[in-house]
Amino acid sequence: KMLGKVLCTVLFVGAFPSPAEASQGHISVVLLGATGDLAKKYLWQGLFQLYMDQVSSGHSFTFHGAALAALEPGQRLMFDVLKKLSCPPDEAPNRCAVLKDQFLKLSQYHQLKTAENYTALSREIETLLRQEGLKEAGRIFYFSVPPFAYTEIAQHINSSCRPPAGAWLRVVLEKPFGHDLQSAQQLAVELAGFFREEEMYRVDHYLGKQAVAHILPFRDQNRQFLDPIWNRHHVERVEVVLKETVEAKGRTSFYEKYGVIRDVLQNHLTEALMFLIMELPANVSSAQEVVQHKLQAFQSLWGLERSSAVLGQYQAYDSHVQEELQEARGYVSTTPTFAGVLIHSESLRWEGVPFLLTSGKALDERVGYARVLFKNRAYCIQSGTLRDAGHSQCKPKQIIFHFGHGALNTPAVLVSRNLFRPVMPKDSWKEADSRSDLHVFGQPLSDFYMYSPVKERDAYSVLISHIYHGRKDFFITTENLLASWAFWTPLLDSTSRQPPRLYPGGVENQHLLDFEMVSGGVAFTLAEPAELLNPSGQMPSDFRAIQSKFRQSPLVSAWAEDLISQLASDMEEAAVRSVARSGQFHLALSGGSSPVVLFQRLARHHHGFPWQHTHVWLVDERCVPLTDSQSNFQGLHRHLLQRVRVPYFNIHPMPVHLSRRLCVEEDGGAELYAKDIVALVANASFDLVLLGVGADGHTASLFPRSENGLEGAPTVVLTESPVKPHQRMSFSLPLINRARQVFVLVLGKGKHDITTLLSRVGHEPSKWPISGVSPSSGQLVWYMDYEALLG
Amino acid sequence: KMLGKVLCTVLFVGAFPSPAEASQGHISVVLLGATGDLAKKYLWQGLFQLYMDQVSSGHSFTFHGAALAALEPGQRLMFDVLKKLSCPPDEAPNRCAVLKDQFLKLSQYHQLKTAENYTALSREIETLLRQEGLKEAGRIFYFSVPPFAYTEIAQHINSSCRPPAGAWLRVVLEKPFGHDLQSAQQLAVELAGFFREEEMYRVDHYLGKQAVAHILPFRDQNRQFLDPIWNRHHVERVEVVLKETVEAKGRTSFYEKYGVIRDVLQNHLTEALMFLIMELPANVSSAQEVVQHKLQAFQSLWGLERSSAVLGQYQAYDSHVQEELQEARGYVSTTPTFAGVLIHSESLRWEGVPFLLTSGKALDERVGYARVLFKNRAYCIQSGTLRDAGHSQCKPKQIIFHFGHGALNTPAVLVSRNLFRPVMPKDSWKEADSRSDLHVFGQPLSDFYMYSPVKERDAYSVLISHIYHGRKDFFITTENLLASWAFWTPLLDSTSRQPPRLYPGGVENQHLLDFEMVSGGVAFTLAEPAELLNPSGQMPSDFRAIQSKFRQSPLVSAWAEDLISQLASDMEEAAVRSVARSGQFHLALSGGSSPVVLFQRLARHHHGFPWQHTHVWLVDERCVPLTDSQSNFQGLHRHLLQRVRVPYFNIHPMPVHLSRRLCVEEDGGAELYAKDIVALVANASFDLVLLGVGADGHTASLFPRSENGLEGAPTVVLTESPVKPHQRMSFSLPLINRARQVFVLVLGKGKHDITTLLSRVGHEPSKWPISGVSPSSGQLVWYMDYEALLG
Repeated sequence: KMLGKVLCTVLFVGAFPSPAEASQGHISVVLLGATGDLAKKYLWQGLFQLYMDQVSSGHSFTFHGAALAALEPGQRLMFDVLKKLSCPPDEAPNRCAVLKDQFLKLSQYHQLKTAENYTALSREIETLLRQEGLKEAGRIFYFSVPPFAYTEIAQHINSSCRPPAGAWLRVVLEKPFGHDLQSAQQLAVELAGFFREEEMYRVDHYLGKQAVAHILPFRDQNRQFLDPIWNRHHVERVEVVLKETVEAKGRTSFYEKYGVIRDVLQNHLTEALMFLIMELPANVSSAQEVVQHKLQAFQSLWGLERSSAVLGQYQAYDSHVQEELQEARGYVSTTPTFAGVLIHSESLRWEGVPFLLTSGKALDERVGYARVLFKNRAYCIQSGTLRDAGHSQCKPKQIIFHFGHGALNTPAVLVSRNLFRPVMPKDSWKEADSRSDLHVFGQPLSDFYMYSPVKERDAYSVLISHIYHGRKDFFITTENLLASWAFWTPLLDSTSRQPPRLYPGGVENQHLLDFEMVSGGVAFTLAEPAELLNPSGQMPSDFRAIQSKFRQSPLVSAWAEDLISQLASDMEEAAVRSVARSGQFHLALSGGSSPVVLFQRLARHHHGFPWQHTHVWLVDERCVPLTDSQSNFQGLHRHLLQRVRVPYFNIHPMPVHLSRRLCVEEDGGAELYAKDIVALVANASFDLVLLGVGADGHTASLFPRSENGLEGAPTVVLTESPVKPHQRMSFSLPLINRARQVFVLVLGKGKHDITTLLSRVGHEPSKWPISGVSPSSGQLVWYMDYEALLG
Repeated sequence: KMLGKVLCTVLFVGAFPSPAEASQGHISVVLLGATGDLAKKYLWQGLFQLYMDQVSSGHSFTFHGAALAALEPGQRLMFDVLKKLSCPPDEAPNRCAVLKDQFLKLSQYHQLKTAENYTALSREIETLLRQEGLKEAGRIFYFSVPPFAYTEIAQHINSSCRPPAGAWLRVVLEKPFGHDLQSAQQLAVELAGFFREEEMYRVDHYLGKQAVAHILPFRDQNRQFLDPIWNRHHVERVEVVLKETVEAKGRTSFYEKYGVIRDVLQNHLTEALMFLIMELPANVSSAQEVVQHKLQAFQSLWGLERSSAVLGQYQAYDSHVQEELQEARGYVSTTPTFAGVLIHSESLRWEGVPFLLTSGKALDERVGYARVLFKNRAYCIQSGTLRDAGHSQCKPKQIIFHFGHGALNTPAVLVSRNLFRPVMPKDSWKEADSRSDLHVFGQPLSDFYMYSPVKERDAYSVLISHIYHGRKDFFITTENLLASWAFWTPLLDSTSRQPPRLYPGGVENQHLLDFEMVSGGVAFTLAEPAELLNPSGQMPSDFRAIQSKFRQSPLVSAWAEDLISQLASDMEEAAVRSVARSGQFHLALSGGSSPVVLFQRLARHHHGFPWQHTHVWLVDERCVPLTDSQSNFQGLHRHLLQRVRVPYFNIHPMPVHLSRRLCVEEDGGAELYAKDIVALVANASFDLVLLGVGADGHTASLFPRSENGLEGAPTVVLTESPVKPHQRMSFSLPLINRARQVFVLVLGKGKHDITTLLSRVGHEPSKWPISGVSPSSGQLVWYMDYEALLG
């Protein structure tokens, strides 16, 4: 057999390992999609590099290209690629030529189409190894195939191609790994049916880029300089950027379904960001520690909202889609080819520091970088003209991980000279010339310490080497992947219907894509060109919130996000008015899930809210300890109170847990709360009460046919809920009805039936407690989203 | 009489008001110190300007120069000055010449030395007015005299020179108004014995500078642009700067006692800062509203500490002092001629925004300005080289009130073009040429909208006009003055012994005076030159805290401020260690006044403190409501808790106020607290207990001969204090002694006796409860300042 012969040749050529030396065992690399674009461009070259690097490692290798094509044409196609493999400049040409010859002989094409093909492949490997008396070390299956083919291939490999006990299996997966959280979860579950987590190597080729891969080592090796400044007190902003000049032309069949966020931000830019912001593990090369810290960093991020992003699309994109996907001439795509996204963390380290992720096609330059810009904390006493160049403390201070391209045209790490001289590993990074004619971010290169790699390596070569070495820290674990999708999916959902801003492309974009941070989100700096022509025209947002009547009271209705934003503004307005009038604002809030988004919005966008003068009360509470996750107060604390500055004395949790059991009558918790209300709230008339509505018509914790609280005194009562936890404490209807303002928030399709019913019934609190809400001298406003109102 | 004659001349010259027109009445201006420097340089010219402006106002005037010199020489000196009065360029030369002639005739010299002199002056004024049939409108006494002369002159004016009922008295006072809070208070009390508040016009000539005076009107007229951005979310920093090239030579007799902070920062720069940061009154020309808002702004400022300032002294200063004050050659002055001060506000609007006040003599340029620098909130997508000049959102955005001198050499208001085009009053400010060769703060002038005054006016002219118009909003009220001294005095006290950094002067200063914000304070960027020579040398701070033993336990001793800083660091270290070990940190704190500075330091300087995982307990509490100002918890909340993020659930006030009366035994508050401790603190062993010591040897609320808490169970007890409020709740000694660490903080001379006693006595808790503190398996550390330790 040909393969046997080839192997013998290798094993007995003097310069190469003898069987004794090859005791580490044999590795079979199977490249699925061996004749595809990625394989042609990067993967075969990467495998050849691996062979050159590891030929003396004690492992022996065979390389198996595989595709759907039959043996003869496939073989020809594949060897056409292999013949063009190039020798890297740092390799002696003679040695490389010999090795290339060996590599070709060790490589073989396989048609992998049917279950039998897979069985045959595995049998061939086993036979060979038996014949040569080699121990099997492991098998690498590299999936360079479209995602729809994953499951079937995975199934075949699992059932037919697993190596014998003692040898490892590594399957290498290429993105896309799903297109949102659900699909990624589904794919993950499927793959988990075939492979163990440690067997899967999900590639994000950015992790193989030298400047990205060096972020964590850099942070580790420069701890002494970075520890004091790597935080919100010193960092002004973090930018992770990939600008491209190319268009999506030729790739629209893929691109139209994915767009820039899925293509670049969800994976590459997010990973680079995580390396920058995660807490630094004690051991930065421990895959497990790194992934744990990365997951914590994901947990610390604020959820994305529609206003977190600006989206654009280059003008020619539609015509590219029409051409390539045979869409009609009038077809309009909303797929973004440009995105700028603002991300915030609520960690102690990063709270308030903007992280900006930006990428786009058809821009003015090709460049990728991650940049940490520090605050200017200095005052320089000499007038500007006298300040010297490199070391002035008043010059911008920054650290740049330059991924490649751009003016520098090389991977690089740059550190402002007025910051510190970094520690860099001498064997892999060298100090580069600061050619003084170049400027980066408005500063001459001479302002920086600049380092570039000793050997520039292609990302795929690097990753293939890491696969060989089992360095899982350079790959995306399932948990990591799902955390990233969980983070991005809400933004993808909320922007899916949004038309992106059109831009001409290249330098003509001018300021059209510049964006600014405004009240917790981002917005394009320039108005839409159309709006520029008609500056007096009303903004679409003016029409978003519909105003009308519901049960004889004002009704505000909109899509959920706009509704919440309107409600939050109205609450701030009420608070400001109340503080101006009486010096304080007594706000009673309901629990449940609907207000969570409202609380988050208040915390994030309403910096003018007079929290210092606000008293926060609970409308109702579940009889569980305050720290229990079911407690209304706990939710309120987590989503609102811990993020704003309400004085401790102004926070009034319901005393459900006094000396004895929870909500036991004898402890008099309800009476105590009522007493507090009377003592602090003038006339027991709250400035604002926020209520929700249950599908059964309950409000606060006043349920249909409740014995307490539906009538009688304006007080606080103990009630029973039909669902667990049964015991509750609640404002009574008469207490609610003393308020100056009552806002009722109703969200979601699940509330459509009760909403419809309520629009028809009269005042029947014992059947539907919410129908009894009718402030005696105050105002009632309904806030309903379109789903609740219209179903 | 000469004066009568002069007046007649004026009143009957055709071009000037006839007696009928002069019905507004007569104003007598008395300039005390009429031949002094200030009078020569500014005041007479200002009075002449007033006369020119108001000659047709309906008021008639006489001007009375006064000094200690006898009539003849004084008169000659004074008229030498008056003859040199100049005509402003915007005045017709003919009219000015006529008016100057009139002004000379209306002016008269008086010797004012004895009580009789004052009586005579007043009588002369009255006689004249009677003779001329004029109604008296008012009298202005301008004190251009050294401060030691104030009281006597004030006394004479009050007893002899008050105008008759119906006419007003305005006394104009020139700084210095004291040299610290106490002396300013004393002076204020003395003056209040002679004048009513509305009669006093304290001059800060900065309020007469056109660019300073326009700050509030600018904020008012541009509310629509500024309202959204005039806050911590948009402002990066505020700088108020006065740089001088001159030295103190010739003024050292004054300067040596005052220094740059008293000379410039306490008054001029502070006032300009206040205009920038105060809440904008509805009516910016209401003196009362302005002063109220200004006082609130003072209230919102964090107290200054030694680390809030960097101080310098130009090298030749000592020799100037030696020469002028006849000091010995070895005389060393610690008077600063340069200061950079970092100020913070805790207002919602400004929290976290650094305000930098800087002034110095012998610097590289003469310039004064207030500058509001905004955060860059934009991301500009085009590469830097393609960005256009004026309007890029990525260029710095700032508003500059340019007081004068510098490159612009004119008062000016500058607003970045990428910010907004300001509204400016067209009658007083005109748009200026943006001469493109000039740069301000690193930007070409063309990046700004720039305005300069239509008529450039000297500050004293402006102020004299305001005195005439009774515009008290341009003067410093007593409250304002005392608020400013209250703010500055602690810094003056804490830096009085500190040797300033020496600097060569002029451009040679280079980076020597550059300073940076570091952990809540400022520090020079460059190490001292001496330290530069010996970089391995230990820093003086290493020697600050003396370590030894007290009662067999470690003792840390230092000056109070260093001690607090050491204690705070040690607490943070304990907290970090504890959180690393157990995930939480249980900290029990004492009340009283000593820990206040500690709490403030923790809140301001210890951003790495793991508050999220810290539980805060009270060691003891007074039986008053939690919101009472006597409550320990209230102090803890005010100085610490409201400034850091301890989760609500981790805050544990003592339950002194349950359902019944305060601390009533039957409510079981102490038992409840003990139960909480057992439930949450492992083994009831606190990670850190912070104690104080009373002069009677009490600690926590365990007093000598207490019936409870000195022995027995580790629990919480009710105790009796010998001083009010008598009822207390306190940890027992056995509970304290279970702690892992106990830190005892002892501050001040008042504790020296008990400290001395404690160093000699053994374990006698019933006499001196503190002597019973002896953690059974934990560590005890004493933190005593030198005053407590050494008396």
